[in-house]
Amino acid sequence: MKKRVITISREFGSGGHSIGKSVAKTLGIGFYDQELLEKIAEETGFSKEFIEEAAEYSTAKNSLLFNVVMNRSLHGRTEPSPADTIYFAQAKIIKNLAEKESCVIVGRCSDYILRDNSDCLHIFIYSDMEDRAKRILERYGDSEKPIQKRITDKDTRRKIYYSHYTDRPWGIPQNYDLCLNSGALGEELCVNSIINVFNRLSKKRMD
Amino acid sequence: MKKRVITISREFGSGGHSIGKSVAKTLGIGFYDQELLEKIAEETGFSKEFIEEAAEYSTAKNSLLFNVVMNRSLHGRTEPSPADTIYFAQAKIIKNLAEKESCVIVGRCSDYILRDNSDCLHIFIYSDMEDRAKRILERYGDSEKPIQKRITDKDTRRKIYYSHYTDRPWGIPQNYDLCLNSGALGEELCVNSIINVFNRLSKKRMD
Repeated sequence: MKKRVITISREFGSGGHSIGKSVAKTLGIGFYDQELLEKIAEETGFSKEFIEEAAEYSTAKNSLLFNVVMNRSLHGRTEPSPADTIYFAQAKIIKNLAEKESCVIVGRCSDYILRDNSDCLHIFIYSDMEDRAKRILERYGDSEKPIQKRITDKDTRRKIYYSHYTDRPWGIPQNYDLCLNSGALGEELCVNSIINVFNRLSKKRMD
Repeated sequence: MKKRVITISREFGSGGHSIGKSVAKTLGIGFYDQELLEKIAEETGFSKEFIEEAAEYSTAKNSLLFNVVMNRSLHGRTEPSPADTIYFAQAKIIKNLAEKESCVIVGRCSDYILRDNSDCLHIFIYSDMEDRAKRILERYGDSEKPIQKRITDKDTRRKIYYSHYTDRPWGIPQNYDLCLNSGALGEELCVNSIINVFNRLSKKRMD
């Protein structure tokens, strides 16, 4: 049987990280979320914090904030920006991982980077605002910014980062094989559904 | 156990009708697709053909085509248009069905009409252009209009009809509990996934 990979894209606060972790544990395969960040840091020499910021602020092409954070010249450039360097490094790392081992990869445009990999299952996890707010407050606690604003800001940044590098909209079903509403189904049933689909597709391919 | 309903929204050519039919058959519950059309025709007095056209052309609010087809005055009106009459009748019929029996309902904004029904599972079936084109050509044959144009035209009409009556965008994951790519998973695995989720949620509610 060929090695198989699951990518998990997720809305902030939807429980995608935790669902991916349980899927990997149940299947006994690797799990890459924060671990990916470490690999990118090693490859590029940037700090993990800077890499996380790059994914958050590599947004509007002409945004002053983006250019300041990324130290990108406002008047053109001849070499890749730090954000581009990070993206190309993560694409290389994700492709190598998928080549090398069966695993679960969370975020970082992995669904797009591995879009032509037929042995790859692409999942999207989402939920309603109320459910996401509850999960975020439990996990990260409250802050000065209202919770709804924290969520929509994060969603916006992810959408812009994704469409900047992939040239397709973020979070539309057509990017994925299976989209699960973790608020409506619960995390356990999301995990169960992903494993059911993964196992049945693997079985089919073995026949 | 409380009665349960499954709504299936689908892209044209994604196999949603056939998947819904298999789900209903496997679960031994009612299936409403064309049958819904008959009930609406009975309730409103309009022909089935006219009702189908209403769902296709009840589009841009100021579209000349819409107003001509629906015999709606271009200069305001005091009573519901035929399209509105049809929508309100279908909403009433769908609510009654969901109240009365466990069943699968395909299309007709049923996901929106039953959005507050907690015993209802909302599914979206979609697929890529190539897969949909293949299925449409097999089922309906070729026509003068290029297949890709037939698909995008139908998608556009469904989107406009849906957002006109529901005030929310059509086909975004957040409207549904589960979204399945029938081209990537195959119809059988879509049916299996829906039944798995349905049964597990029902079991949970009985505990």
